[in-house]
Amino acid sequence: MPGNSFGEIFRITTWGESHGKAIGVVIDGCPAGFPLYKEDIQRELDRRKPGQSEVTSPRKESDEVEILSGVFEGKTTGAPISLIVENKDVDSSIYEDLRDLFRPGHADYTYQRKYGIRDYRGGGRSSARETVGRVSAGAVAKKVLGLNNITIIGYTLQIGNIKAEKIDLGEIEKNEVRCPDRNAAEEMIKRILKVKRSGDSIGGIVEVVARGVPPGLGEPVFDKLDGDIGKAMMSIGAVKGIEIGAGFGVASMIGSKNNDEFYNNKGVIATRTNNAGGILGGISTGEEIKIRIAVKPTPSIAKTQGTVNIKGDDSTIVIHGRHDACICHRIIPVAEAMMALVLTDHLLRNRLAKIS
Amino acid sequence: MPGNSFGEIFRITTWGESHGKAIGVVIDGCPAGFPLYKEDIQRELDRRKPGQSEVTSPRKESDEVEILSGVFEGKTTGAPISLIVENKDVDSSIYEDLRDLFRPGHADYTYQRKYGIRDYRGGGRSSARETVGRVSAGAVAKKVLGLNNITIIGYTLQIGNIKAEKIDLGEIEKNEVRCPDRNAAEEMIKRILKVKRSGDSIGGIVEVVARGVPPGLGEPVFDKLDGDIGKAMMSIGAVKGIEIGAGFGVASMIGSKNNDEFYNNKGVIATRTNNAGGILGGISTGEEIKIRIAVKPTPSIAKTQGTVNIKGDDSTIVIHGRHDACICHRIIPVAEAMMALVLTDHLLRNRLAKIS
Amino acid sequence: MPGNSFGEIFRITTWGESHGKAIGVVIDGCPAGFPLYKEDIQRELDRRKPGQSEVTSPRKESDEVEILSGVFEGKTTGAPISLIVENKDVDSSIYEDLRDLFRPGHADYTYQRKYGIRDYRGGGRSSARETVGRVSAGAVAKKVLGLNNITIIGYTLQIGNIKAEKIDLGEIEKNEVRCPDRNAAEEMIKRILKVKRSGDSIGGIVEVVARGVPPGLGEPVFDKLDGDIGKAMMSIGAVKGIEIGAGFGVASMIGSKNNDEFYNNKGVIATRTNNAGGILGGISTGEEIKIRIAVKPTPSIAKTQGTVNIKGDDSTIVIHGRHDACICHRIIPVAEAMMALVLTDHLLRNRLAKIS
Amino acid sequence: MPGNSFGEIFRITTWGESHGKAIGVVIDGCPAGFPLYKEDIQRELDRRKPGQSEVTSPRKESDEVEILSGVFEGKTTGAPISLIVENKDVDSSIYEDLRDLFRPGHADYTYQRKYGIRDYRGGGRSSARETVGRVSAGAVAKKVLGLNNITIIGYTLQIGNIKAEKIDLGEIEKNEVRCPDRNAAEEMIKRILKVKRSGDSIGGIVEVVARGVPPGLGEPVFDKLDGDIGKAMMSIGAVKGIEIGAGFGVASMIGSKNNDEFYNNKGVIATRTNNAGGILGGISTGEEIKIRIAVKPTPSIAKTQGTVNIKGDDSTIVIHGRHDACICHRIIPVAEAMMALVLTDHLLRNRLAKIS
Repeated sequence: MPGNSFGEIFRITTWGESHGKAIGVVIDGCPAGFPLYKEDIQRELDRRKPGQSEVTSPRKESDEVEILSGVFEGKTTGAPISLIVENKDVDSSIYEDLRDLFRPGHADYTYQRKYGIRDYRGGGRSSARETVGRVSAGAVAKKVLGLNNITIIGYTLQIGNIKAEKIDLGEIEKNEVRCPDRNAAEEMIKRILKVKRSGDSIGGIVEVVARGVPPGLGEPVFDKLDGDIGKAMMSIGAVKGIEIGAGFGVASMIGSKNNDEFYNNKGVIATRTNNAGGILGGISTGEEIKIRIAVKPTPSIAKTQGTVNIKGDDSTIVIHGRHDACICHRIIPVAEAMMALVLTDHLLRNRLAKIS
Repeated sequence: MPGNSFGEIFRITTWGESHGKAIGVVIDGCPAGFPLYKEDIQRELDRRKPGQSEVTSPRKESDEVEILSGVFEGKTTGAPISLIVENKDVDSSIYEDLRDLFRPGHADYTYQRKYGIRDYRGGGRSSARETVGRVSAGAVAKKVLGLNNITIIGYTLQIGNIKAEKIDLGEIEKNEVRCPDRNAAEEMIKRILKVKRSGDSIGGIVEVVARGVPPGLGEPVFDKLDGDIGKAMMSIGAVKGIEIGAGFGVASMIGSKNNDEFYNNKGVIATRTNNAGGILGGISTGEEIKIRIAVKPTPSIAKTQGTVNIKGDDSTIVIHGRHDACICHRIIPVAEAMMALVLTDHLLRNRLAKIS
Repeated sequence: MPGNSFGEIFRITTWGESHGKAIGVVIDGCPAGFPLYKEDIQRELDRRKPGQSEVTSPRKESDEVEILSGVFEGKTTGAPISLIVENKDVDSSIYEDLRDLFRPGHADYTYQRKYGIRDYRGGGRSSARETVGRVSAGAVAKKVLGLNNITIIGYTLQIGNIKAEKIDLGEIEKNEVRCPDRNAAEEMIKRILKVKRSGDSIGGIVEVVARGVPPGLGEPVFDKLDGDIGKAMMSIGAVKGIEIGAGFGVASMIGSKNNDEFYNNKGVIATRTNNAGGILGGISTGEEIKIRIAVKPTPSIAKTQGTVNIKGDDSTIVIHGRHDACICHRIIPVAEAMMALVLTDHLLRNRLAKIS
Repeated sequence: MPGNSFGEIFRITTWGESHGKAIGVVIDGCPAGFPLYKEDIQRELDRRKPGQSEVTSPRKESDEVEILSGVFEGKTTGAPISLIVENKDVDSSIYEDLRDLFRPGHADYTYQRKYGIRDYRGGGRSSARETVGRVSAGAVAKKVLGLNNITIIGYTLQIGNIKAEKIDLGEIEKNEVRCPDRNAAEEMIKRILKVKRSGDSIGGIVEVVARGVPPGLGEPVFDKLDGDIGKAMMSIGAVKGIEIGAGFGVASMIGSKNNDEFYNNKGVIATRTNNAGGILGGISTGEEIKIRIAVKPTPSIAKTQGTVNIKGDDSTIVIHGRHDACICHRIIPVAEAMMALVLTDHLLRNRLAKIS
């Protein structure tokens, strides 16, 4: 019940603070009998880590994962899988000045109000570092999905006002912003660097697509597939919006254009369009699941901002340290992980739908 | 665990099909000791019911609620509250033609695939009639919130390309589309009637605002307040997107504009802007919570559409009966109810945050 | 999360008070596609109802169940199944005297302390009448189990100091105390009637056996099959103890006697003894599951008892009305229902254990 | 939902295998703001560890706990508390012979059947070593209870046929079997050593008492306090029965003897007897909560036993290594921990009962 778990059947619980000893996740409900290696997880963690390029923050998180349980002789056993990553390269001293100040756009104030105490070092529990657990667990989920021929891919669709004009999946991992349009990527990087030089940050839009999802995933009426995806995405720190298929575009559409007509595509029931984004009535149709999320500009900026201190006095704040000026490319592995977690959970839940 | 429940502490379970004998909801976890009358619930149900005007469907749902348990001598007892509404004015005959056809944009196909069986009459369990249970339970939640001086209001912001230019809350219940801008409302109604005459339907955007929410509601890291609101809204049948505060607007914003600076407002910590929509790190700040949802055009349209039948053969379908050409005004009580349920749940959960 | 639900996958939520309008249960997570008729449920309810004989209370509960949802054309659809039973023959007047008094052995005092309010009529929510919902849902569970060749049978093993000396299953439904030993049954009935004449009541022991349970049911480490059975049984009002297999007998056993040796029984792995009661490490072995529960004497007795009133003043109480002097035979359908619910839940959960 | 978590609000998830790298627990839902030190937890772990005396197994588990998260500057923060203990002194070689054999009385066979794979080393996940996590989390729960003046104590009541004749709490930690009767303790130890010499083991009964529990804990109707205690205790590996208050003794009692009369004890409502064991209708009365559990003889015995191998062939087994011949004294810290977890969970849940 408490808030650090996600999933009903393939259930993860993340723990750890930004500047604590370690950070990790426990996966309960992972089915027994498939191969799982450290490398499966490390690969995804490496995609998430900062310090990869000029546009990311230079904190060096080596982030080496260790599998502590749930795997025996290279296979999952059905027991909980405990994954842990040590926190290294942690320098809490720069946060000493922030002990009594609330950073705008961060959770400092709300944690303090809720709990009456907070670990102010690096954001503590509210740090994006918590996503190490999500990405680690998501890597295991991706393995399960892979066995079912389901793939997930995310990319940056927009940064500031610069939009990808084409979707070339082969381009994504070739540029630092993970944009599927090479030209747009170049513009985006320029834009980020410019913003960064001015001590500021910038937002964007990320798209995530799942392919190979069979029809039938999702549970009426509250645990709809889109409901759970909505929660999964909105639970990522910087996400302020989520849309599926035609999304907010439906507002100005008429029904006859928005409805996706069914047809028999060589023996498989398909739809001619996919405004629904692969989900009808909360249940997957078999078409591509396509969602977009709105990513806010990093709240940690170098500019002086007004704020209050812990006593409530008006004050100003300057946030030192170097931060990502745009986090779209780093949120992609996290959003993919959350999508993988939702789909794995519903893939398993769907085993329960029929009597036989 | 199964999908027909919502909420962790103030937990509702809805049941019932569109053309079954009755429809209802059980609320478990409602605190003991506050006054609750049938009228509290009936009032909200009346706001939801169709047949109220020219722009709504003419099905007459008298929808009289009955409290079967959990209330004694006018007060809640802490026992589960069972609410039931009989299904009257049900004519299943017009659905007979649809027994073997999948309506585009509806859940017919996905339910059939998932369960191997479906109640095709009026959409069965996937019908919007299921929201009778949500609205009934939401009315009880609103009572709890009212005792805590929290209010919720929803309105239509956009239909097709027509947008409300001003927010005059006093106007909302005075026009048939629940738009806070009288002039826009007139245009919206004209637009709907025109679309309706052409046998089509149209989408829109609804905004929901919660006022008086104290700081501290929301649970890190998955059960963030915005995460749960995201799920709540995306679990409503026609909703294809949700955004909070600046929402998708953050994509083109820079951090120094998007961050909401804190200041001391006569002894209360407040923010000068509210791009966050009242939530930071998943926890309420004390500012207004403001969200928008994208509502798709009603999929039931009079035009001939391509589809397949239950055997997978290509076919066409014409949907008889008269349906709402736009459901924004009817989704408002539902969206308000979902917001009320999330806030009540988190209001109670927040009692658990501190040791004393 | 609140306490009126049971089961993780095959999940029931009961509602209703003894003297309210109706009482019922919602089953969520029932698989789609098997035949379910009102008669399946009514049969079990009839086994539970009072007024069947001289040893039971004469309240006439006709207890006719109605299926309100989740079944279409005689088959389950996967949607929640709502079952309701009207409360008839309700006379609350005799409880008027008890409004301000706490009955010893009942939940009056604890409900009042917990909630600050209670429906004192007939015990309100704490009444054994709540088991109408359990038995109704259990009947559906029994159907699922029947499709899997699993059967459950319960019987009275002991009343006062009188013990069944043999287990003849054919005898059970032939006598009023549901004892599998005809001679013991006669003695038991005499004993009950004698106790009843003295205005008192008496306790007993009930045994429940499940046959045909396949190996593999139960989830380590907390949701062990015996853990869940333990909770299921201890959640029945009058039950003060539960033991499985050799039960408390293990205290005086040595390991070499208590261990059940495995052997190959014509191709099936079996155990030569069954002190484990069919469960090892929380998971079913394939042997009979056998448990016993301790049933306390009905707390409603005609004798004058000391108590306090709602103000805390010392007082005395005499409970009018005619009550069961022994409830073993009436608790049997309830205990069977709870066993059926646990087994159905774990039968479904076990579908999730392996990757394929 | 999966089985490795316990508790609704104060929720623990244990992980780890007997011979894996480490073992641990994550506590989610622990309230913020109370002091918590490693020593609080280490103290309880030390009470649990083997190798303390002649009657325990000589495996040296240094079992040093580390707090990885959730505590900042000596206080809980509301974030999940991750506790970890390295597995040292692990020698898996002696289990090599057991790779293909099912030990009678152990979970080898059932795990293999359920998952198709098992970590056979030291019982893997089904090992009693899993209780390291329970005891660690229980220590945190005890801290919460201590702040509320609730104490828990457990002791050995019976081993074989030797029963404690008196309850002298001061004696408990003075003898190796944790028996509150010094003379009985001596007899018990003799009995255990004799059984041990014969290569066998022996069972017993443990009693656990909670004092200072306020009235009102426990949730109707399924999450009764005794229901949850029942599950908690039955989820401990060797426990085959649980009874509360008069327990199985109620079978031969009459109502007028079993009912506990209320009276005003200097302003506090109390009961003159406590056959209910401190719980009525599933809710605590304010009296002592007293339960007993039946502990089976350790299944690991040195005698030759019949069994089958993984292919199903009849075989024999001899279990090497030195094991506890009786585990009552080692199960005590575990049973106390489980009681502490249940009470802490319900103490918090009870904050939700009333509207104000």
